[in-house]
Amino acid sequence: MFRVALWGLGAMGGGMARAVLERRNAGRDGLEIVAAVDRSHVLAGRDLSDVVGLSQRSGVRVSRDAAATLQQSRPDVVIISTRSELRRVAPQIRLAVEVARSNCITIAEEAAYPWAADRGLAEELDRLARLRGVTVLGTGVNPGFVLDALVIALTGVCLRVDHVRAERINDLSPFGSTVMKAQGVGLTPEDFREGVRRGSVVGHVGFAQSLALIARALGWRLDRVEEVREPILSSVRRSAPHARVEPGRVAGCLHLARGLASGREVICLVHPQQVCPEAEGVKTGDFIAIRGQPDINLSIRPEIPGGTGTVALALNMIPTVVEARPGFLTMADLPLPRSLPQVLSPNACATAGGEHLGPQPPDLAARERPRPLLR
Amino acid sequence: MFRVALWGLGAMGGGMARAVLERRNAGRDGLEIVAAVDRSHVLAGRDLSDVVGLSQRSGVRVSRDAAATLQQSRPDVVIISTRSELRRVAPQIRLAVEVARSNCITIAEEAAYPWAADRGLAEELDRLARLRGVTVLGTGVNPGFVLDALVIALTGVCLRVDHVRAERINDLSPFGSTVMKAQGVGLTPEDFREGVRRGSVVGHVGFAQSLALIARALGWRLDRVEEVREPILSSVRRSAPHARVEPGRVAGCLHLARGLASGREVICLVHPQQVCPEAEGVKTGDFIAIRGQPDINLSIRPEIPGGTGTVALALNMIPTVVEARPGFLTMADLPLPRSLPQVLSPNACATAGGEHLGPQPPDLAARERPRPLLR
Repeated sequence: MFRVALWGLGAMGGGMARAVLERRNAGRDGLEIVAAVDRSHVLAGRDLSDVVGLSQRSGVRVSRDAAATLQQSRPDVVIISTRSELRRVAPQIRLAVEVARSNCITIAEEAAYPWAADRGLAEELDRLARLRGVTVLGTGVNPGFVLDALVIALTGVCLRVDHVRAERINDLSPFGSTVMKAQGVGLTPEDFREGVRRGSVVGHVGFAQSLALIARALGWRLDRVEEVREPILSSVRRSAPHARVEPGRVAGCLHLARGLASGREVICLVHPQQVCPEAEGVKTGDFIAIRGQPDINLSIRPEIPGGTGTVALALNMIPTVVEARPGFLTMADLPLPRSLPQVLSPNACATAGGEHLGPQPPDLAARERPRPLLR
Repeated sequence: MFRVALWGLGAMGGGMARAVLERRNAGRDGLEIVAAVDRSHVLAGRDLSDVVGLSQRSGVRVSRDAAATLQQSRPDVVIISTRSELRRVAPQIRLAVEVARSNCITIAEEAAYPWAADRGLAEELDRLARLRGVTVLGTGVNPGFVLDALVIALTGVCLRVDHVRAERINDLSPFGSTVMKAQGVGLTPEDFREGVRRGSVVGHVGFAQSLALIARALGWRLDRVEEVREPILSSVRRSAPHARVEPGRVAGCLHLARGLASGREVICLVHPQQVCPEAEGVKTGDFIAIRGQPDINLSIRPEIPGGTGTVALALNMIPTVVEARPGFLTMADLPLPRSLPQVLSPNACATAGGEHLGPQPPDLAARERPRPLLR
């Protein structure tokens, strides 16, 4: 059983709480939430189940005092789901590592390869984790999986890689107004370009991390990285709960990043994010094309859902992170991700037409499994 | 630079020799072939380059005396590409580990999860590897990647997995007569069924390994495993260099394996192998469908080529295996596979329209890369 503290109870952290509280946690790889931290005054003092809309009490009270709560609850892993920027989560990582002496997983995009965001800060956090003997990992669907880890794994069957292109086409419709603003949804093309200049239209956060992860894994030195943000103009009316796009206005942001080595493009990552892509016949999906020996063409249709996938990865990586060597690691340093079996619910099995899959008996499990990889 | 010994110089071992000898091996992750062993009297004493059809001499003579050659050449890794069965490669693994004190990679299908082939023998080899402080790995495209490692990695984005289906549809046309016989190509349906009974029609070797790898990673206990071999009947004439199929005869073997838990199918692996599938409109490809939360549907079209992919994986896993903890490991225990950068050839880069990608300068590389994962 792993003792988990959740720091940040927004859509992602709240989703993790719900996933753990809703599901059976039997077995040695099960998860137990031992602390929940959020800066919100509204949530403070409430039971975690109540906060995430579940009826049965969890017995975990949401606290605003991270230091005291983490120190008292002695978690094996603190999961930080608060901000995207390394410099914003760094104080929280420090506290998890130094005060709670805990391993740490964060879905902060820049933490997927922190050296690309701030080399000095990344090195400091890496040293701190080694000193305390704990592991820090940045993960998520993107960056952390679709446009980097999955690409890297695919190159494993290649004798030669000449060029990598990966594209993630998704639908922003379920998201709220903050996301719509960051992607420039509903703007005129002129306002979109002005927003890109002023920094209010952000596009995707994480290209620098994905480029660096791929390049490092393949031993490539990128001497230039370019990012381009273009408006996706809609020729039809599109509407979503938090967005309305008139014809001629911006439906989203076509954001791409290129990595060049010796003047040649070797990596191209493309992530157009828009509301209702199907309104103009665009199908969502994740696509990877490797040119080399051999060529590889992969597609995942529809795309791996960003929310569920990120919640799942953060939880699924817990046993691996607990076993891993100390330091600030990346998804490319760790064994293949895999779903936690204990997150399987009896209902899910029943709806899939079968009986419950019990956990493996301990004696058999001990014999069948090779010992943990790292230590 | 890693010192590599190749044991077995058939299509796969010969392909590895050619790949290493043809390509630049600069940098610390480069490969150097220090020994080549094959039982063939025809190859003995010849230069390895000559054996694999390259003009420039390698300086490595093929030897029939494995013990003496491996002991003298002090390889970091011995790659065994001789047989499919664990019991047939076990003496060779023992020799690599005990006499050469070397790490060992084998593409023997049953070694991808040796406990499924012979638990006692697997445990003995695992103990031996630990005792000698070296790592043994079974790898390849299938088993080892498409129908297991890639499936496992995909479940990493799932909160729940109810069912896994993976299918690999390939074209046998390039293969020789041994493969045609093992798949029953050209037989009447009656002779095919008789061949399955007698064991001459084998189908795919490795389903037991893939099922066990997936089940272990997901913490599932399979209480039953079923394999089915059905003839793929051709309604048209199909021909390949080593096969000719008349209408009404067998074009190949539809081999599938099911893993059941508590009476419910939880894994279904399908691998129809036939000559010229496109003759009847069947497109080749690798397909993975996960039912759970969320559902994931992946396709790779055409399929990852089995030969090149297996050669690549065996070579690409070398640095990881050298760094890994001792014991008999699986692809699910190790960090993501990735292409060796040094296998990149200047020609390949040039044809892709750019300059050569040099290796990263050592000082930068040392700072950018976290230290090796395992030790």
